[in-house]
This record gives sequence, structure tokens and C-alpha cells, in this order.
Amino acid sequence: MTQTDRRVLISAPGKVILFGEHAVVHKKLAVAASLGLRTYLHLEENETGQCRLHLPDVDIDLTWPLSELSLNVDRKALDTDHPDNIPEEIKQQFESWMGVTTKENQRRAVLSFLYLFFVLKTDKPASFGFTISTRSTLPVGAGLGSSASFASCISTALLVLFNHIPIGFTQSEKKESYLDTINRFAYKAEQVIHGNPSGLDNSVCVFGGALSFRRGERFVPLEGFQSLQLLLTNTKVPRSTNALVAGVGAKKEKYPNVINPILDSIDNISLRCCEAFKSGSKEDLAQELEDLVDMNHCLLHALGVSHSSLEKVRVITEEFGVKTKLTGAGGGGCALSVIRDDVNVETTNLVAKKLAEEGYDCYRTLLGGTGVNAVVLGDDSLDQTWLLNADRETLESHAI
Amino acid sequence: MTQTDRRVLISAPGKVILFGEHAVVHKKLAVAASLGLRTYLHLEENETGQCRLHLPDVDIDLTWPLSELSLNVDRKALDTDHPDNIPEEIKQQFESWMGVTTKENQRRAVLSFLYLFFVLKTDKPASFGFTISTRSTLPVGAGLGSSASFASCISTALLVLFNHIPIGFTQSEKKESYLDTINRFAYKAEQVIHGNPSGLDNSVCVFGGALSFRRGERFVPLEGFQSLQLLLTNTKVPRSTNALVAGVGAKKEKYPNVINPILDSIDNISLRCCEAFKSGSKEDLAQELEDLVDMNHCLLHALGVSHSSLEKVRVITEEFGVKTKLTGAGGGGCALSVIRDDVNVETTNLVAKKLAEEGYDCYRTLLGGTGVNAVVLGDDSLDQTWLLNADRETLESHAI
Repeated sequence: MTQTDRRVLISAPGKVILFGEHAVVHKKLAVAASLGLRTYLHLEENETGQCRLHLPDVDIDLTWPLSELSLNVDRKALDTDHPDNIPEEIKQQFESWMGVTTKENQRRAVLSFLYLFFVLKTDKPASFGFTISTRSTLPVGAGLGSSASFASCISTALLVLFNHIPIGFTQSEKKESYLDTINRFAYKAEQVIHGNPSGLDNSVCVFGGALSFRRGERFVPLEGFQSLQLLLTNTKVPRSTNALVAGVGAKKEKYPNVINPILDSIDNISLRCCEAFKSGSKEDLAQELEDLVDMNHCLLHALGVSHSSLEKVRVITEEFGVKTKLTGAGGGGCALSVIRDDVNVETTNLVAKKLAEEGYDCYRTLLGGTGVNAVVLGDDSLDQTWLLNADRETLESHAI
Repeated sequence: MTQTDRRVLISAPGKVILFGEHAVVHKKLAVAASLGLRTYLHLEENETGQCRLHLPDVDIDLTWPLSELSLNVDRKALDTDHPDNIPEEIKQQFESWMGVTTKENQRRAVLSFLYLFFVLKTDKPASFGFTISTRSTLPVGAGLGSSASFASCISTALLVLFNHIPIGFTQSEKKESYLDTINRFAYKAEQVIHGNPSGLDNSVCVFGGALSFRRGERFVPLEGFQSLQLLLTNTKVPRSTNALVAGVGAKKEKYPNVINPILDSIDNISLRCCEAFKSGSKEDLAQELEDLVDMNHCLLHALGVSHSSLEKVRVITEEFGVKTKLTGAGGGGCALSVIRDDVNVETTNLVAKKLAEEGYDCYRTLLGGTGVNAVVLGDDSLDQTWLLNADRETLESHAI
């Protein structure tokens, strides 16, 4: 296998908001953590002179001769504060390469790739070609950071491909600096996808572990953070994050003296979570997290962002003594349940079965997955087809 | 019919806590209101020389010759700050009249009667006799003030019987003063029954309408209070009020910065309720009460005093757009649902049917029933048997 044939498996975790969703909009502290569920990116360098972008999760498979992927304008024009502000003629060129990608999520996925490609590309031989394929074990649009996870992978792939960072960046002494670089470009990709993201999602996906954050301040890694077992339930009830956020705002305006203390209480739940990781024994920690999860959910319900499906998940898990809260925007979407170490596998299986019977998707995973990672795949058989067909355990065992 | 044959129907409403249960223990404002569900007391004066106390709800039917109901000690000894502090020899005499009333609630019902009887009795001819029969449409031990309602009726009956107040006290110019007197003795009876009651329950039962209260302060009638339709659901799940109160205290101790703002929020919910009655139009009022009911329940849930049965009631009523909160101690017990004027009868029937299918008892009634009342029954046929067998509508039509 030559250098140009190398295959790289890049992966980045999803994220989940542990505490403080909605309250964070009103400058309260929130805590988010990475997940065991990840997005995987298979990067194959070859000598085809072609670039193939294969994103089966959003039904994209585009191939361009690399000789055609060139801009008529100065590349420096891409260096704007927000990718939306690039010159109109570049946007038009991007659109011309887009093909028949009519759906907005397809368009934005391809655009984020093209944008980073032109920002990061360096000179290569004429025969140089590559294929990028991705696959995610994260549900899309469920508030679990699937786009940030994708953005982190794409950013890493292009940084590695054009030799801005070494493949072994996680083993490097300069790891933190490399991760900062990945995160900076992942944020750019997130801007292309989401407009004005907070930067939290990509930070969690890139660095892994858990972060606390308050609007307008820097993210702070959680001291003493420990991995925890988690059951995620996707109710698959669609909802509008914007409408839910607006609803809380309207309630706060109508009942300020009722809502403001609720937001303060949530602020203190997030603070307590940070303290619990810093100082608690694993048992105390589990107990406290259960208490905080339960209280935070009730407060979110008081804010009006729960949903009958989420309440049903809580009733089902509560029967087994498992504490659950909504995570993210609410109004449907996902619920997270903390699984204590002393909850046996049979119980967790039974809970998951009962939830599945209601038509919900269940994911057993860990809170606090490793951040973005890249490994060289030595075996030629581990190609794109393998990526698309391998089960989750196999992917995880190769990726981290 | 002679004067000594007169029959009087006395009645007093139950009470429901609208907002602020549990928080009130921590000096937050609470709001309680009377109910359309009442306790009825049938007082018959006769010339049997006997006193009959007939309380079928607690399975009591005792008859004493009035000549035997006399104390060996000075009656002034009854004038203590708390009925528990009366001399031991009086207690022993009370016990000797008790008969085979082994259950604590039976004992306390009879004791409260005997205590008030000796405090209030005046000289009467030797032939003087009377029968007191009671019947309640309130569920017992469900946090709906059944004992305070009973205490208010007994207090009124004995005050009327011994001519301390006129039967027509509600039409009198001195009504307020008479109600104060009734309330003072109703509180004494509540002390016999409950030990250390707050005095809220009997105040609501005696005065009717709605009151706000904060521990250590005087009760304040709600300005502009309007009657509202209510659905009460008794889950019949037994619970210990003391254990629930202690649980909230323990949570407050463990998570003060989380729980204190929740209690503040509840305080402001009660305040907002008072303001809403003072200033709101009926439609705004209904909307606001629904919002406050919903938020207050979620906050009580956050305090840990809900129960799966109460959550089920909320899920069922929510399907019909009806807002529900637990009322009283929680952990089971009763839930109250606000029924807006624009909710049609069919919907309310359907909700009640669904709740009954779960095994719960449903009561459709009004918030803000009239306080204690007494009417002379002109018709001889309206005797104790009538009282025990009449339906709720018939009793209500005679009593108020």
C-alpha cells in the first residue's frame, strides 16, 4: 500500500445536554457531554484525480474531477467572519457543483464540505484523488449533535488530507493545539450548516468529555468528569426548536416572577452537577445526578417544553427506578436516562424493550465519549463498503 | 311543631388548596378555597332528655342520658390554650363516655364533640334532649378538609343549640362576629382532631370563598374572588403527609440553591393568583389559573411530592386540554382540575369517565362554596333518615 492509498477512519462523538437547556438562552449555566454514539468518516486517498463525497445518511454521492474544483477568485475572499459572507460569485460556483441536491440539509452538508475544502486545500500532484464517506450512529435532527459530529469529522479529514495536522494528532504533544485547530474549522462548518451555532456542540464533539458553558463566556471542561451509562430515547416527535425557545421567552415575559426563579434553580442544578463531579464519590455522584435529572426535567416541564411522549418515557423508566429528563429543545425529541452502575442488564433491556414497544428508538451508550480521533486502517478490506455495513461495536473498536 | 322539636340543617364546605401546598411550610404564600362539596349536620331538638351523636361516616352512634353527661370538676378547667391540656380527670371522664370507639378517627370525632359540648353547654330543662347526625359528601382523609368541615358544623350546632348565636346568623348584621365565634370553636375541635392544625382549613370552611395565607400571618380573603368549575379526582392512594413534608425539608437541606428558588417561584404563583382575581377578566383569569395550575404542579413534582397516579390523572386530563395539579400533601391523594366555562359538559363527562376507569373517584363541583350555614327545616319528614339518604343535589338545595 502506498502513501496515496492510505485509508483513515476518523470519528467524533455526538453530544447531549445534561442540564440547562432553554435556561442557557437566558444566560444560565448549562452542562453538555459527549456520547458513545459517533459519526464515522472513512477517508481514502487514491490516484484517481477525483474527489468523491459520499454521505449516505443524507443521500449524497457526488464525484468531481479535482481539476474542475477551482475558484476564479482569490481564495483569501473565503476568509470572512462568517461563511455566509463570502462573495456572491463563490457562492454561485459552489451552487454549480452542487448537483441535484434539493433538500436544505443536503445542500448545507455539501456546502460545508466545499467551503472547508477551499479554505484548507494545498497543492497536490495531478493524480491526487480522495473519497470521503461518512456514516453516523447518531439519529439526525434529534438534538444529539449529529451535524457538529459530522462537521468535526469533515474538518479533521481535510486538515489531515492537506497535511495541516498529523494523523496521530491525539498522540502528539501538541494535541491541544491540533484540537483547537480542528474545532475552529468544525465551527466554520457548523456555521455553514446552522447559521449561528453557539459553538458548544462542535467543542464537545472535538474535545469529548463534558463542558459547562454560559452564554458569552468560554466553555469550561468539567473537573473530575467520569463516564456514565446512559439510555437515550428518541421519541421521534418532530418539533420546532425556535418555537419552543420563543414559548419559554413568552412565558418569562408573562410570568417573570414565576419563571425567573425557575431559571435560577436550573442554573444551580448545572452548578451542582459541576461540583458533584469535582468532589463526589461515584455512588454519591449517581444519586445526585438522578436527583438533578429529575428536578431539571420537572422545571423544564414547568417552562412548558415537555411533551406527552416525554412524560410517557418518564413514566416507563420510573417504573424501574430509572430517572429521565428531556434533553435539548424538548417538545418531543430525545430523553436521557441515567443508568446507575447497580442497575442490572436485564432491567435496562426490559426498559429499552418497553420503550421500543411505544415506537421509540432506544440507544444504550456512554456519556463522555472520546473526542475526535483518527486512525490509519492497515487492512485494505476496511473500505467504504465496510464502513457502511459494519455494526456499531466493530466501528467503535476500530475508531477509538 | 313546638320549639323543642325544631330541626336544623347546618352545613359547611370542604376546602382545597389551590396553590402553595408544601411551600407554605417554608413561609411561602398559599391560597385555599372552599368547595361545593359539604358536610351536613342535622340537629334535632327533642324532649327525650337524651343526647344522641350519630356520625355514620365514621361509624359512630352513641346515646347518653343528658343527666349523666356532667363533670365532677370545674368547667373552667376546660379553658386551656389547647384542648390536650385539660386536666387528666376530665380526659378520663371523656374516655368513660366513649364506648367501644377503638379507631383513632372515631375517638377524636367523639372527643371533639364532648369537648365543645362542655365548653358551650348552658342550663336546660330536664326533658331537654337532642340528636346530632352528620353526613359528608367529602371524601375522608383526602386533604379536602372533611374534618374542618365537620368541626365547623359541630361548633355551629352547639352554639345554636345553647343559644350563643341565632340560627339566622348568616342574615344577621353581626354575621362576621358570629362567624368569628364559630371559627374559634371550630378551631378548638380541629385541635382535638389534629393536634396542631394551621387554622386555615376551618377558616375556609367557616367563611367560604378563598383565602391567602402565610405562616405566622393572618388569613386574607381573596379580593374579587369568583367561583370556578372544578373536577376533583381522588386517586385513593394513601400517603403520609408528615413523610412528604419531611422529604421536601430533606431535599431543601441537600439542594438549598435548587429548592429555594422553586419555593420562591411557588410563592409568586400564589401572589399571581391573588392579583389575577383582583384584576382579571373571567377569560384572562381562566387562562392564568390554568398556567399557574400547570406550573405549580411541575414545581411540586420537582419537590418530589407527586406520584405516578397523579401523573396519570394529568396525562388523562391533558388529552382534553384540561390542566391539573395535585392538591394538598401529594404522593397520591387528590388532584384538582380547572374546568373553563367553555369546556362543554360532554368533555367533562368523558374526562370523568376515563378517570373512573382508572379506579379514581371523581367529583364535579364548584370552587368557592358558601361558608357555614344553618337553616330551619320546616318539614318533619326531613329527619335524620332523610339526611342519610338524600342525594347531593337535594341536600345542597336545602342547605344553602
